[in-house]
Amino acid sequence: MASFSDTTGGGGAAGAASGRSVGVVVPQRMRFEAPLLLACGRSLAGYELAYETYGTLDAARSNAVLICHALNASHHVAGWYAGEPDNVGWWDNMVGPGKPLDTDRFFVVGVNNLGSCFGSTGPLRVNPATGAPWGADFPLVTVEDWVDAQARLADRLGIERWAAVMGGSLGGMQALDWAIRYPQRVGHALVIAAAPNLSAENIAFNEIARQAILTDPEFFDGNYYAHGVKPRRGLRVARMIGHITYLSDEQMEAKFGRQLREGLRFSFAPEFQIESYLRHQGEKFAEYFDANTYLRITKALDYFDPATRTGGNLAQALSDAVCRFLVVSFTTDWRFPPARSREIVKALVHERRDLAYAEIAAPHGHDAFLLDDPQYHAVVRAWFERIAETAQSGTGKTGTHHVFPEAGKTGTHQVFPQTPVLVGDVRENVVRPGFPRPGFSTESAQPHVQRADYATIGGWVPERARVLDLGCGDGALLAYLAAKRRATGYGIEIDDEGVLASVRNGTNVVQSDLERGLAGFEDAAFDVVILSQTLQAMRRIEAIVAEMLRVGREAIITFPNFGHWSHRLQILRGRMPVSSSLPYEWYDTPNIHLCTVADFDAFLAERGHRIVDRVVLAGGRPVAVLPNLTGELAIYRFRKA
Amino acid sequence: MASFSDTTGGGGAAGAASGRSVGVVVPQRMRFEAPLLLACGRSLAGYELAYETYGTLDAARSNAVLICHALNASHHVAGWYAGEPDNVGWWDNMVGPGKPLDTDRFFVVGVNNLGSCFGSTGPLRVNPATGAPWGADFPLVTVEDWVDAQARLADRLGIERWAAVMGGSLGGMQALDWAIRYPQRVGHALVIAAAPNLSAENIAFNEIARQAILTDPEFFDGNYYAHGVKPRRGLRVARMIGHITYLSDEQMEAKFGRQLREGLRFSFAPEFQIESYLRHQGEKFAEYFDANTYLRITKALDYFDPATRTGGNLAQALSDAVCRFLVVSFTTDWRFPPARSREIVKALVHERRDLAYAEIAAPHGHDAFLLDDPQYHAVVRAWFERIAETAQSGTGKTGTHHVFPEAGKTGTHQVFPQTPVLVGDVRENVVRPGFPRPGFSTESAQPHVQRADYATIGGWVPERARVLDLGCGDGALLAYLAAKRRATGYGIEIDDEGVLASVRNGTNVVQSDLERGLAGFEDAAFDVVILSQTLQAMRRIEAIVAEMLRVGREAIITFPNFGHWSHRLQILRGRMPVSSSLPYEWYDTPNIHLCTVADFDAFLAERGHRIVDRVVLAGGRPVAVLPNLTGELAIYRFRKA
Repeated sequence: MASFSDTTGGGGAAGAASGRSVGVVVPQRMRFEAPLLLACGRSLAGYELAYETYGTLDAARSNAVLICHALNASHHVAGWYAGEPDNVGWWDNMVGPGKPLDTDRFFVVGVNNLGSCFGSTGPLRVNPATGAPWGADFPLVTVEDWVDAQARLADRLGIERWAAVMGGSLGGMQALDWAIRYPQRVGHALVIAAAPNLSAENIAFNEIARQAILTDPEFFDGNYYAHGVKPRRGLRVARMIGHITYLSDEQMEAKFGRQLREGLRFSFAPEFQIESYLRHQGEKFAEYFDANTYLRITKALDYFDPATRTGGNLAQALSDAVCRFLVVSFTTDWRFPPARSREIVKALVHERRDLAYAEIAAPHGHDAFLLDDPQYHAVVRAWFERIAETAQSGTGKTGTHHVFPEAGKTGTHQVFPQTPVLVGDVRENVVRPGFPRPGFSTESAQPHVQRADYATIGGWVPERARVLDLGCGDGALLAYLAAKRRATGYGIEIDDEGVLASVRNGTNVVQSDLERGLAGFEDAAFDVVILSQTLQAMRRIEAIVAEMLRVGREAIITFPNFGHWSHRLQILRGRMPVSSSLPYEWYDTPNIHLCTVADFDAFLAERGHRIVDRVVLAGGRPVAVLPNLTGELAIYRFRKA
Repeated sequence: MASFSDTTGGGGAAGAASGRSVGVVVPQRMRFEAPLLLACGRSLAGYELAYETYGTLDAARSNAVLICHALNASHHVAGWYAGEPDNVGWWDNMVGPGKPLDTDRFFVVGVNNLGSCFGSTGPLRVNPATGAPWGADFPLVTVEDWVDAQARLADRLGIERWAAVMGGSLGGMQALDWAIRYPQRVGHALVIAAAPNLSAENIAFNEIARQAILTDPEFFDGNYYAHGVKPRRGLRVARMIGHITYLSDEQMEAKFGRQLREGLRFSFAPEFQIESYLRHQGEKFAEYFDANTYLRITKALDYFDPATRTGGNLAQALSDAVCRFLVVSFTTDWRFPPARSREIVKALVHERRDLAYAEIAAPHGHDAFLLDDPQYHAVVRAWFERIAETAQSGTGKTGTHHVFPEAGKTGTHQVFPQTPVLVGDVRENVVRPGFPRPGFSTESAQPHVQRADYATIGGWVPERARVLDLGCGDGALLAYLAAKRRATGYGIEIDDEGVLASVRNGTNVVQSDLERGLAGFEDAAFDVVILSQTLQAMRRIEAIVAEMLRVGREAIITFPNFGHWSHRLQILRGRMPVSSSLPYEWYDTPNIHLCTVADFDAFLAERGHRIVDRVVLAGGRPVAVLPNLTGELAIYRFRKA
């Protein structure tokens, strides 16, 4: 079965970076007799869903994971069918024994959506009321309809609650809808390469594809089955259009460029390889896909917009969702670019939901979600490992570590305000570097400075404070504050390694560049915003300080004191200083805006900010006398006057 | 007549930022009887070209400018037709009295290309050999064919040499081809929003549009005229596809977003505004455009690739082009993104051609070339003003100021190795700031430092040296070196204001961010690469120094000496220094990698670079004693050992 673009997607057996395939699988079908009321107002009297399962449901029925499929995929997620070794599931590189979603630990369900042409009830199937195929009369179904149907399948499989619901693209939209409309039935939602709704450009592409089909003379208003034809021309063009949006420009250039085929010139025959490739994709698709299904799936995409139920307010739409979220986007995805995923993240942060957001640098465009990029798969793997571990750690249910305890209060299953495991880890594994490059680094320096830094900050952060940690690395400071102060909140981190470590540690982390500002966070959203030993590495000092005081009631900033006597002495001798607190050379230092304690005092005073507290450390201990001369590390706590 | 997207393009009368319209114009047609041999091997026995002219050809026939049109435009560039006030030319905001291309000074010619459906010979016109419309039998024409036909029109108009050939998108490709294949007949080429060839993605979009037309049952293999129909469905889809690629995602979102129309839901009627808009555009286009023309124009786009004649080497393809080039791209243009224009610039730099490259920050995508963005129009206006001024400055011919004198040697009309006017200007108008932000700034500081800085550099640059000036501002240093040393070369500048000033001053300028490196320049392309008072503002010091020594035999770097006694003293007192040479506060300084003379000595020594010369200035004069203590500005000349 084709997934998105056949050249890059699927191919699980070959594409798997690790783990084995689930091997031979058998598709199943379940019949539902109770009518299903659809969003369009019509009702399906009865219907069937095709599905597959991999792995074993545990005794507590707590390890089930639902995979939702995207535009042209199906329930055939992993493995292959007996006698059809090439018919590999579309996400075989993700799902299997030892794979990121490990079927040795999880019971995985793939389900084909209503309206599809791959086994579930849809336009191709017979309408019992007429004895003929549904055809054009099959209703326009929505993401919500699909999720409702999936929920009934879960009932019948005895799955009261999914450990996780996961999907990419349109599948991610289903995961989002599950979290919103069935909050008690979802432990984790993995929303990958998705968007909270389609953009005008997305709708435009869909509409052109639909127009190609609708105006094909062999469409016959959707009743082409009766004429023994299908609107192949329209399907071909529709598929070719879709295909362009799955690949990045760079990727298409790398694969095809301007390579020519042998043969005719100055004709409309395919002359360039890309033409031949697209025509081939179009032909293949026209062969195996149904036009009525294609029309309906693109409409479901267009319609999806949970915020319409809340007057356009996405955060409010997400207010019922209480699960943990893993949101993933890909840098070269121009169908659903990272900015669209950041909209989801912003709304979740507003609702104080637990989440990690990873922005994967991948060249493959939208298709990247089907490929086995190492960082992407590592993050998903770490996420599922954490689900499995918290499930094992004594509760007997699929664990949900809520950094925000209140997020769990409406959920009967989410009662883990803090995870002791996490706290234990943290005290032993403080890796925050002394004076890091922006973002995370595994270098470890000046442990005495770190400890003192943390202790001072810990002394200032109020009990149960909401905290935003800018440049959070592996989340060690947040974990420390969670342990010491029962603080909750988020870290921002730019570096892949830090984001992955934060996911492993169960820290709420948002992958972002601080230089972009804090646009993803609303005014006064936090009690304390911390910028620990990163200020001096930033380009726009005034901007970040203003942003900190916008999103938080109070700011804590720590930085190396350029006024330290050793720095003064080196400059007096005519060289830029290199010291234990400033370990870089002038030309490669990430520390581009250094200042002294006296400078920072003046900086805050000039802006009318009030210093609540100030500690200057040397050798890890506070210095009282001549702090600007003897202090190595300055720690400020301040707020607007 | 529609230009690209009708919502943003055209509308000259309303859209003109300045100047008046040329008013009522009359289209003309010229018949050519001599056969025209086409690239496809076929020959047109005779043909007609529709064209318009604006302004007056001067006595020397030296002020003629040719405008080449893009996909669906025509010879109707400016003004309107009598009785049709809404039928405004597609580039009316650019061409007219007092407009960037000023018809009070220039004689402007717009010409309709062969194969078009707007008046020149094409599929719609009658084939004299058969007495019936050409239809499918009209040859597949190329950019080269169009230019050959335009050249014959120029002959007939008595224009031996165009002051400039100008075009956007496909029109820019024609300007490029003119420069390559008729080098003696072009003074300036303005290549706007173009590319040296189509990418795989570009071809893919064209191919889908073609497939929509070719598979339309009413296409009848291109002989639909005989059937009294046209392939409207295909044309509609083709236009809708094209339309998406003309607008930026952001622009489409801003204009349409997810706005709904009144009416039916859960149907395939247009529900979103964007659907309705696209359908309307498609309908309109299907009404006025001819499918055979559309097919041919997209093929001409696909085929264009001057580098095929030189084994893929674009620089070699451009080696015959001797005119001055203005290359312009737009940041949100994803059809022909800035990177494609930079390919042209790189090739021209390799060939040591005179050029300016402006990368316009505009939100409108590819359509931006039709709009009146202030920076864009200012640059084009400045370019034409300079053409007019150099033409006036005593030569009687359209002047071309060649910074590279050798570029003119194959051209009989390009004999202005240096423009005295420029030199005179420069000495009076040195605006290079003392310690600028990266890029250009109008702040002026320490004139004595500047003068000394220039004098020292001027003393080191060899006679007739090829120079690359990084962060060139308004081009003052290059002009100074041209005057003093007859040096030639390019400046790199990130700032719009600097680029515009450089264009005004006739400096070869490439708009680019130095932090991206010097990828647009080849190894050992220059005698001297200069980084004047910018080093300290860069993030990646080692990278830029390595790049300088890669593209140049010798490097000259100047920077403020952090070791100056006043800085040391301030730091000794516990504050970050603010001085006449470092006039910023620690938190807003662009100077992020400061160093002392001793530091830079050590930096070069560690890398094995050889200091050819070093001067340290204070109060504008060289200091001999204790330079690291008393020097304000350090000037180094060094090379690889």
